[in-house]
Amino acid sequence: MNYNEAVSVLRTIPVFATLDSPSLKLLAFSSSYLSFEDGEALCHQGDPGDSVFVVYEGEVEVSLVLPDNGRIHLARLGRNDILGEMAVICNLPRTADVHACGPLKVLKIEGDVFLQLVTGNPDAAHGMMRVLAERLLRFTEQYEQLRRCMPDPVVP
Amino acid sequence: MNYNEAVSVLRTIPVFATLDSPSLKLLAFSSSYLSFEDGEALCHQGDPGDSVFVVYEGEVEVSLVLPDNGRIHLARLGRNDILGEMAVICNLPRTADVHACGPLKVLKIEGDVFLQLVTGNPDAAHGMMRVLAERLLRFTEQYEQLRRCMPDPVVP
Repeated sequence: MNYNEAVSVLRTIPVFATLDSPSLKLLAFSSSYLSFEDGEALCHQGDPGDSVFVVYEGEVEVSLVLPDNGRIHLARLGRNDILGEMAVICNLPRTADVHACGPLKVLKIEGDVFLQLVTGNPDAAHGMMRVLAERLLRFTEQYEQLRRCMPDPVVP
Repeated sequence: MNYNEAVSVLRTIPVFATLDSPSLKLLAFSSSYLSFEDGEALCHQGDPGDSVFVVYEGEVEVSLVLPDNGRIHLARLGRNDILGEMAVICNLPRTADVHACGPLKVLKIEGDVFLQLVTGNPDAAHGMMRVLAERLLRFTEQYEQLRRCMPDPVVP
Protein backbone atom coordinates (compact mmCIF):
# COMPACT_ATOMS: atom_id res chain seq x y z
CA MET A 1 0.00 0.00 0.00
CA ASN A 2 1.44 3.39 -0.90
CA TYR A 3 1.13 6.62 1.02
CA ASN A 4 -1.83 8.03 -0.96
CA GLU A 5 -3.73 4.77 -0.63
CA ALA A 6 -3.16 4.89 3.13
CA VAL A 7 -4.63 8.41 3.27
CA SER A 8 -7.66 7.17 1.30
CA VAL A 9 -8.14 4.21 3.65
CA LEU A 10 -7.87 6.44 6.74
CA ARG A 11 -10.42 8.86 5.27
CA THR A 12 -13.01 6.02 5.18
CA ILE A 13 -12.62 5.31 8.92
CA PRO A 14 -15.47 7.21 10.65
CA VAL A 15 -13.31 8.44 13.56
CA PHE A 16 -10.74 9.95 11.15
CA ALA A 17 -13.12 11.09 8.39
CA THR A 18 -13.28 14.70 9.63
CA LEU A 19 -9.53 15.18 10.03
CA ASP A 20 -8.03 17.73 7.63
CA SER A 21 -5.55 16.68 4.94
CA PRO A 22 -2.35 17.50 6.86
CA SER A 23 -3.58 15.46 9.84
CA LEU A 24 -4.53 12.49 7.64
CA LYS A 25 -1.12 12.67 5.97
CA LEU A 26 0.62 12.71 9.37
CA LEU A 27 -1.50 9.71 10.40
CA ALA A 28 -0.62 7.84 7.18
CA PHE A 29 3.05 8.75 7.58
CA SER A 30 3.17 7.33 11.13
CA SER A 31 1.33 4.13 10.18
CA SER A 32 2.68 0.68 9.28
CA TYR A 33 0.75 -1.55 6.91
CA LEU A 34 0.70 -5.11 8.20
CA SER A 35 -0.70 -8.41 6.93
CA PHE A 36 -1.56 -11.40 9.12
CA GLU A 37 -2.57 -14.97 8.34
CA ASP A 38 -5.48 -16.80 9.91
CA GLY A 39 -4.86 -17.34 13.64
CA GLU A 40 -1.80 -15.06 13.86
CA ALA A 41 -1.64 -12.77 16.91
CA LEU A 42 -1.65 -8.96 16.51
CA CYS A 43 -0.98 -8.55 20.23
CA HIS A 44 -1.13 -10.40 23.54
CA GLN A 45 -2.54 -9.44 26.90
CA GLY A 46 0.28 -7.68 28.83
CA ASP A 47 2.16 -6.39 25.74
CA PRO A 48 3.02 -2.65 25.79
CA GLY A 49 0.00 -0.63 24.60
CA ASP A 50 1.91 1.74 22.34
CA SER A 51 -0.12 1.58 19.10
CA VAL A 52 -3.61 1.43 17.66
CA PHE A 53 -4.78 -0.93 14.90
CA VAL A 54 -7.34 -0.12 12.21
CA VAL A 55 -8.76 -3.11 10.33
CA TYR A 56 -9.05 -2.42 6.62
CA GLU A 57 -9.49 -5.99 5.35
CA GLY A 58 -10.65 -9.08 7.23
CA GLU A 59 -11.70 -9.71 10.82
CA VAL A 60 -10.12 -10.11 14.25
CA GLU A 61 -11.12 -11.98 17.40
CA VAL A 62 -10.59 -10.26 20.77
CA SER A 63 -10.27 -12.74 23.65
CA LEU A 64 -8.86 -13.33 27.12
CA VAL A 65 -6.78 -16.30 28.28
CA LEU A 66 -7.82 -17.85 31.60
CA PRO A 67 -5.38 -19.30 34.15
CA ASP A 68 -6.39 -22.85 33.07
CA ASN A 69 -5.52 -21.90 29.44
CA GLY A 70 -9.16 -21.75 28.42
CA ARG A 71 -10.18 -18.66 26.45
CA ILE A 72 -13.10 -16.21 26.78
CA HIS A 73 -14.32 -14.58 23.56
CA LEU A 74 -14.95 -10.84 24.00
CA ALA A 75 -15.64 -9.44 20.54
CA ARG A 76 -15.18 -9.87 16.81
CA LEU A 77 -14.22 -6.72 14.91
CA GLY A 78 -13.98 -6.06 11.18
CA ARG A 79 -13.40 -3.48 8.47
CA ASN A 80 -13.02 0.11 9.72
CA ASP A 81 -12.98 -0.98 13.35
CA ILE A 82 -10.34 0.43 15.69
CA LEU A 83 -8.67 -1.70 18.32
CA GLY A 84 -5.93 -1.32 20.87
CA GLU A 85 -7.04 2.24 21.59
CA MET A 86 -8.01 1.47 25.21
CA ALA A 87 -4.44 0.67 26.25
CA VAL A 88 -3.21 3.84 24.48
CA ILE A 89 -5.89 6.07 26.04
CA CYS A 90 -5.33 4.67 29.54
CA ASN A 91 -1.54 4.25 29.15
CA LEU A 92 -1.79 0.59 30.13
CA PRO A 93 -0.50 -2.72 28.75
CA ARG A 94 -2.78 -4.64 26.34
CA THR A 95 -5.85 -5.93 28.14
CA ALA A 96 -6.71 -8.76 25.72
CA ASP A 97 -5.32 -11.01 22.98
CA VAL A 98 -6.17 -10.16 19.37
CA HIS A 99 -5.93 -12.80 16.60
CA ALA A 100 -6.63 -12.68 12.87
CA CYS A 101 -9.75 -14.60 11.74
CA GLY A 102 -8.72 -15.43 8.20
CA PRO A 103 -6.36 -13.26 6.11
CA LEU A 104 -6.12 -9.79 7.65
CA LYS A 105 -4.75 -6.38 6.74
CA VAL A 106 -4.39 -3.60 9.29
CA LEU A 107 -2.89 -0.16 9.72
CA LYS A 108 -0.80 0.09 12.88
CA ILE A 109 -0.70 3.71 14.10
CA GLU A 110 1.76 5.04 16.69
CA GLY A 111 -0.15 5.64 19.94
CA ASP A 112 1.08 9.17 20.63
CA VAL A 113 0.25 10.39 17.10
CA PHE A 114 -3.20 8.77 17.30
CA LEU A 115 -3.91 10.40 20.67
CA GLN A 116 -2.71 13.82 19.57
CA LEU A 117 -4.89 13.84 16.43
CA VAL A 118 -7.99 12.29 17.92
CA THR A 119 -8.10 14.58 20.98
CA GLY A 120 -7.14 17.68 18.97
CA ASN A 121 -10.10 17.55 16.60
CA PRO A 122 -13.61 17.95 18.13
CA ASP A 123 -15.34 15.71 15.57
CA ALA A 124 -12.69 12.99 15.84
CA ALA A 125 -12.85 13.26 19.65
CA HIS A 126 -16.63 12.87 19.55
CA GLY A 127 -16.25 9.95 17.10
CA MET A 128 -13.76 8.18 19.38
CA MET A 129 -16.00 8.72 22.41
CA ARG A 130 -18.91 7.30 20.41
CA VAL A 131 -16.88 4.18 19.51
CA LEU A 132 -16.07 3.61 23.20
CA ALA A 133 -19.60 4.35 24.41
CA GLU A 134 -21.18 2.07 21.78
CA ARG A 135 -18.75 -0.71 22.73
CA LEU A 136 -19.77 -0.20 26.36
CA LEU A 137 -23.45 -0.42 25.40
CA ARG A 138 -22.94 -3.65 23.44
CA PHE A 139 -21.03 -5.05 26.37
CA THR A 140 -23.78 -4.05 28.80
CA GLU A 141 -26.24 -6.03 26.66
CA GLN A 142 -23.97 -9.11 26.64
CA TYR A 143 -23.50 -8.77 30.40
CA GLU A 144 -27.25 -8.45 30.93
CA GLN A 145 -27.91 -11.59 28.84
CA LEU A 146 -25.28 -13.51 30.76
CA ARG A 147 -26.64 -12.39 34.15
CA ARG A 148 -30.09 -13.55 33.09
CA CYS A 149 -28.68 -17.04 32.43
CA MET A 150 -27.29 -17.26 35.96
CA PRO A 151 -29.21 -19.33 38.56
CA ASP A 152 -30.03 -16.24 40.69
CA PRO A 153 -29.51 -13.26 38.40
CA VAL A 154 -31.77 -10.62 39.91
CA VAL A 155 -32.22 -8.55 43.01
CA PRO A 156 -35.99 -8.34 43.58
CA MET B 1 -24.82 26.45 45.72
CA ASN B 2 -23.85 29.73 44.11
CA TYR B 3 -22.21 30.23 40.74
CA ASN B 4 -18.61 30.54 42.06
CA GLU B 5 -19.04 27.42 44.18
CA ALA B 6 -20.23 25.56 41.06
CA VAL B 7 -17.09 26.64 39.17
CA SER B 8 -14.97 25.38 42.10
CA VAL B 9 -16.78 22.03 42.15
CA LEU B 10 -16.39 21.61 38.38
CA ARG B 11 -12.67 22.38 38.63
CA THR B 12 -12.21 19.38 40.96
CA ILE B 13 -13.75 16.95 38.41
CA PRO B 14 -10.78 15.37 36.58
CA VAL B 15 -12.42 15.56 33.12
CA PHE B 16 -13.07 19.32 33.51
CA ALA B 17 -9.93 20.24 35.46
CA THR B 18 -8.01 21.44 32.40
CA LEU B 19 -10.80 23.63 30.98
CA ASP B 20 -10.01 27.35 30.98
CA SER B 21 -12.00 29.75 33.17
CA PRO B 22 -14.50 30.92 30.49
CA SER B 23 -15.32 27.27 29.67
CA LEU B 24 -15.78 26.37 33.34
CA LYS B 25 -18.03 29.41 33.78
CA LEU B 26 -20.12 28.40 30.76
CA LEU B 27 -20.37 24.88 32.21
CA ALA B 28 -21.44 26.24 35.61
CA PHE B 29 -23.93 28.61 33.97
CA SER B 30 -25.58 25.77 32.05
CA SER B 31 -25.75 23.47 35.10
CA SER B 32 -28.57 22.84 37.54
CA TYR B 33 -27.81 21.90 41.14
CA LEU B 34 -30.09 19.09 42.26
CA SER B 35 -30.60 17.17 45.51
CA PHE B 36 -32.09 13.69 45.78
CA GLU B 37 -33.17 11.57 48.72
CA ASP B 38 -32.24 7.93 49.25
CA GLY B 39 -33.87 5.76 46.56
CA GLU B 40 -35.04 8.65 44.35
CA ALA B 41 -34.50 8.21 40.59
CA LEU B 42 -32.24 10.61 38.65
CA CYS B 43 -33.34 9.02 35.38
CA HIS B 44 -34.99 5.92 33.96
CA GLN B 45 -34.05 3.64 31.09
CA GLY B 46 -35.69 5.10 27.94
CA ASP B 47 -35.77 8.74 29.14
CA PRO B 48 -34.31 11.30 26.68
CA GLY B 49 -30.52 11.44 27.06
CA ASP B 50 -30.18 15.22 26.99
CA SER B 51 -27.98 15.90 30.02
CA VAL B 52 -24.99 14.66 31.99
CA PHE B 53 -24.82 14.32 35.77
CA VAL B 54 -21.75 14.91 37.94
CA VAL B 55 -21.93 13.55 41.49
CA TYR B 56 -20.51 15.99 44.00
CA GLU B 57 -21.92 14.47 47.21
CA GLY B 58 -23.19 10.94 47.85
CA GLU B 59 -23.48 7.85 45.67
CA VAL B 60 -25.70 6.48 42.92
CA GLU B 61 -26.65 2.99 41.82
CA VAL B 62 -26.82 2.24 38.06
CA SER B 63 -29.11 -0.69 37.23
CA LEU B 64 -31.31 -2.30 34.60
CA VAL B 65 -34.91 -3.48 35.01
CA LEU B 66 -35.68 -6.93 33.60
CA PRO B 67 -38.98 -7.89 31.94
CA ASP B 68 -39.98 -9.81 35.13
CA ASN B 69 -39.34 -6.60 37.17
CA GLY B 70 -36.15 -7.99 38.67
CA ARG B 71 -33.15 -5.67 38.58
CA ILE B 72 -29.53 -6.13 37.52
CA HIS B 73 -26.94 -4.01 39.31
CA LEU B 74 -24.41 -2.49 36.87
CA ALA B 75 -22.31 -0.04 38.86
CA ARG B 76 -22.09 2.21 41.90
CA LEU B 77 -20.66 5.67 41.28
CA GLY B 78 -19.67 8.41 43.71
CA ARG B 79 -18.05 11.81 44.16
CA ASN B 80 -16.58 13.31 40.97
CA ASP B 81 -18.02 10.54 38.79
CA ILE B 82 -19.82 11.46 35.58
CA LEU B 83 -22.92 9.64 34.45
CA GLY B 84 -25.43 9.89 31.66
CA GLU B 85 -22.68 10.84 29.21
CA MET B 86 -23.13 7.69 27.09
CA ALA B 87 -26.63 8.66 25.97
CA VAL B 88 -25.42 12.21 25.19
CA ILE B 89 -22.35 11.01 23.25
CA CYS B 90 -24.37 8.45 21.24
CA ASN B 91 -27.51 10.61 20.97
CA LEU B 92 -29.61 7.81 22.45
CA PRO B 93 -32.22 7.49 25.20
CA ARG B 94 -30.98 6.56 28.71
CA THR B 95 -29.69 2.99 28.75
CA ALA B 96 -30.11 2.36 32.49
CA ASP B 97 -31.89 3.51 35.65
CA VAL B 98 -29.96 5.64 38.13
CA HIS B 99 -31.04 5.95 41.78
CA ALA B 100 -29.63 7.83 44.75
CA CYS B 101 -28.00 5.65 47.44
CA GLY B 102 -28.52 7.88 50.46
CA PRO B 103 -28.70 11.69 50.26
CA LEU B 104 -27.26 12.86 46.96
CA LYS B 105 -26.20 16.13 45.33
CA VAL B 106 -25.44 16.38 41.62
CA LEU B 107 -24.75 18.93 38.92
CA LYS B 108 -26.96 18.39 35.89
CA ILE B 109 -25.23 19.76 32.75
CA GLU B 110 -26.97 20.36 29.42
CA GLY B 111 -25.82 17.67 26.96
CA ASP B 112 -24.92 19.96 24.06
CA VAL B 113 -22.81 22.27 26.24
CA PHE B 114 -21.05 19.28 27.80
CA LEU B 115 -20.29 17.79 24.39
CA GLN B 116 -19.03 21.06 22.93
CA LEU B 117 -16.62 21.70 25.83
CA VAL B 118 -15.38 18.16 26.28
CA THR B 119 -14.64 17.58 22.58
CA GLY B 120 -13.20 21.08 22.05
CA ASN B 121 -10.41 20.73 24.61
CA PRO B 122 -7.75 18.04 23.97
CA ASP B 123 -7.09 17.32 27.66
CA ALA B 124 -10.81 17.13 28.49
CA ALA B 125 -11.36 14.91 25.42
CA HIS B 126 -8.56 12.60 26.56
CA GLY B 127 -10.00 12.62 30.10
CA MET B 128 -13.47 11.69 28.85
CA MET B 129 -12.04 8.90 26.67
CA ARG B 130 -10.11 7.63 29.69
CA VAL B 131 -13.30 7.57 31.81
CA LEU B 132 -15.09 5.51 29.12
CA ALA B 133 -12.14 3.19 28.51
CA GLU B 134 -11.62 2.56 32.24
CA ARG B 135 -15.33 1.80 32.63
CA LEU B 136 -15.02 -0.64 29.74
CA LEU B 137 -12.02 -2.29 31.41
CA ARG B 138 -13.85 -2.66 34.75
CA PHE B 139 -16.82 -4.10 32.90
CA THR B 140 -14.58 -6.56 31.02
CA GLU B 141 -13.30 -7.81 34.38
CA GLN B 142 -16.85 -8.24 35.73
CA TYR B 143 -17.85 -10.01 32.53
CA GLU B 144 -14.81 -12.29 32.75
CA GLN B 145 -15.61 -13.20 36.37
CA LEU B 146 -19.23 -13.93 35.46
CA ARG B 147 -18.22 -16.07 32.49
CA ARG B 148 -15.92 -18.09 34.74
CA CYS B 149 -18.89 -18.85 37.02
CA MET B 150 -20.89 -20.30 34.11
CA PRO B 151 -21.13 -24.10 33.76
CA ASP B 152 -19.17 -24.09 30.49
CA PRO B 153 -17.37 -20.76 30.33
CA VAL B 154 -14.41 -21.50 28.11
CA VAL B 155 -13.54 -22.45 24.59
CA PRO B 156 -10.56 -24.84 24.82
